[in-house]
Amino acid sequence: MTAQDIDGKSIAAAVRAELTEKLASLPDGSSKPGLAVMLVGERKDSQTYVRMKQKACADCGMDSFLCTYPDDDKLNEELLLAQIKDWNEDPKVHGILVQLPLPKKIDEATILEAVLPAKDVDGLHPANAAKLFNTATHAGAAKLDWKDMTSIPFHIPCTPQGCIELLDRIGCDIEGKNAVVIGRSNLVGLPVAMLLLHRNATVTIVHSRTKSVEDVVRNADIVVAAVGRAHMVTKSYLKPGCTVIDVGINSVDAPGTKRGYRLVGDVKYDEAKEIAEWITPVPGGVGPMTIAMLLRNTWNGWRRTTEEK
Amino acid sequence: MTAQDIDGKSIAAAVRAELTEKLASLPDGSSKPGLAVMLVGERKDSQTYVRMKQKACADCGMDSFLCTYPDDDKLNEELLLAQIKDWNEDPKVHGILVQLPLPKKIDEATILEAVLPAKDVDGLHPANAAKLFNTATHAGAAKLDWKDMTSIPFHIPCTPQGCIELLDRIGCDIEGKNAVVIGRSNLVGLPVAMLLLHRNATVTIVHSRTKSVEDVVRNADIVVAAVGRAHMVTKSYLKPGCTVIDVGINSVDAPGTKRGYRLVGDVKYDEAKEIAEWITPVPGGVGPMTIAMLLRNTWNGWRRTTEEK
Repeated sequence: MTAQDIDGKSIAAAVRAELTEKLASLPDGSSKPGLAVMLVGERKDSQTYVRMKQKACADCGMDSFLCTYPDDDKLNEELLLAQIKDWNEDPKVHGILVQLPLPKKIDEATILEAVLPAKDVDGLHPANAAKLFNTATHAGAAKLDWKDMTSIPFHIPCTPQGCIELLDRIGCDIEGKNAVVIGRSNLVGLPVAMLLLHRNATVTIVHSRTKSVEDVVRNADIVVAAVGRAHMVTKSYLKPGCTVIDVGINSVDAPGTKRGYRLVGDVKYDEAKEIAEWITPVPGGVGPMTIAMLLRNTWNGWRRTTEEK
Repeated sequence: MTAQDIDGKSIAAAVRAELTEKLASLPDGSSKPGLAVMLVGERKDSQTYVRMKQKACADCGMDSFLCTYPDDDKLNEELLLAQIKDWNEDPKVHGILVQLPLPKKIDEATILEAVLPAKDVDGLHPANAAKLFNTATHAGAAKLDWKDMTSIPFHIPCTPQGCIELLDRIGCDIEGKNAVVIGRSNLVGLPVAMLLLHRNATVTIVHSRTKSVEDVVRNADIVVAAVGRAHMVTKSYLKPGCTVIDVGINSVDAPGTKRGYRLVGDVKYDEAKEIAEWITPVPGGVGPMTIAMLLRNTWNGWRRTTEEK
């Protein structure tokens, strides 16, 4: 068997085209979704990510706002908190994104928790996390339709949401499947495990202290690798016919290439390709979904605001 | 093999004795931990639980406060919220417990979220839940010692905490073990899964939509059954030598007995006894731990308050 690629690039493009179309069909003079981005310090990678996010907003007809802060003597938490407060109160801003990591002297949790949960399009605020980690089915609990993530009334983190969107778009029926998540980070592993659980998968979380990761993963119909170790998952880890979502983006030496390195996933793609049914390439798999889901969250925040009126 | 019983009754008694001793050794005139309990309506079972909790406080030298509200025309959320606010501000109150379930016309989430997280000894507030569902290991994240649950600076739900305490007191080394949690409720299944993960178990969560629960559970070194189905887990589900924590308390008909019913767990105890190494009986296993952990949370809340001064 040769696995089919899960083409994250074209799936992300499709999501973005859907949003573009929705926004283009608004009457003239309508309010538009707006994303505010905070960039602190001079990291080149952060600058690139922020530019990509702003361009993506423009491409699909959303507003974006940027505040940059050099990492100098004047930088402090109060300065950033004041800006967050402004954006929280600004009706033109529907999503607030704090580009991470922040410089060491700034406490990330303090800044992230200052963002209004309704505008927390990264889904990192404890109020949003607590709702995601909730399976309440008692009488008073809101009945959520997890098969339609845009109907969920709070923000779901972008990369985990993108993983599930990929599975949906290839027609993968998650319910009842054995899903194994490799890695237990707050940014990816844990939230993706919760999303799989909400979709009624049987979910196992493995990590650095797991004995015989290989044996556990080999039971999986769906593997989500989010551990950040280049090529950790080889052919022998995989059950024939499984679906592989590779969240890892690791740079490995590639002497003789122009850049001197190349990006690879947590999964040994060439080997996995021989045994899986579906697999995300790296790059071009999960990566492009993150921005698409960020746009969708911003649109969703805007939609909820306008519907409330 | 015949499994040894995990004697929750005597372990809970030991925990309570430790607290009693700590409190007895305080200088005369010291402040004491205080638990405030809200009881709404006329459910006999709730009245019994509340009485047990108050008696447990008295036995170990803590204060307890009780407010009861009949489920009548005068009952409304404002009335309950005003009482919660009073307790939030009362320095004699270190723990606030709202006995559930509340009458239908009261929104449970509204009441529970009004409790100050630092006094939320049931660990049900979203702020506490968000902290439990957090594995942050980045530089800025607080380093938590999950092997000493009393050192965790927020409230962990009582029954899940009791499950882990039982494992600790029989000397079960959780790290690296395969743990399977049956059930995904917010009250037990999910938080116990998180606690096992924090202790570096490899955790699988199974539920009503899982295919072949039996096959999954048979891989488990540690089984936590929290599903509420009498005798669902039989001998064929269990790996020889496993440890079984049975959270279920189900009443089944017992014609000819005085009460006409008896209480059984989610696990078929007699069969499991033949194959497991350790097992909690029902009753007398997990049950008694809930109140012991409630007392410990209240003591912990008090201790943190006094240490801050």
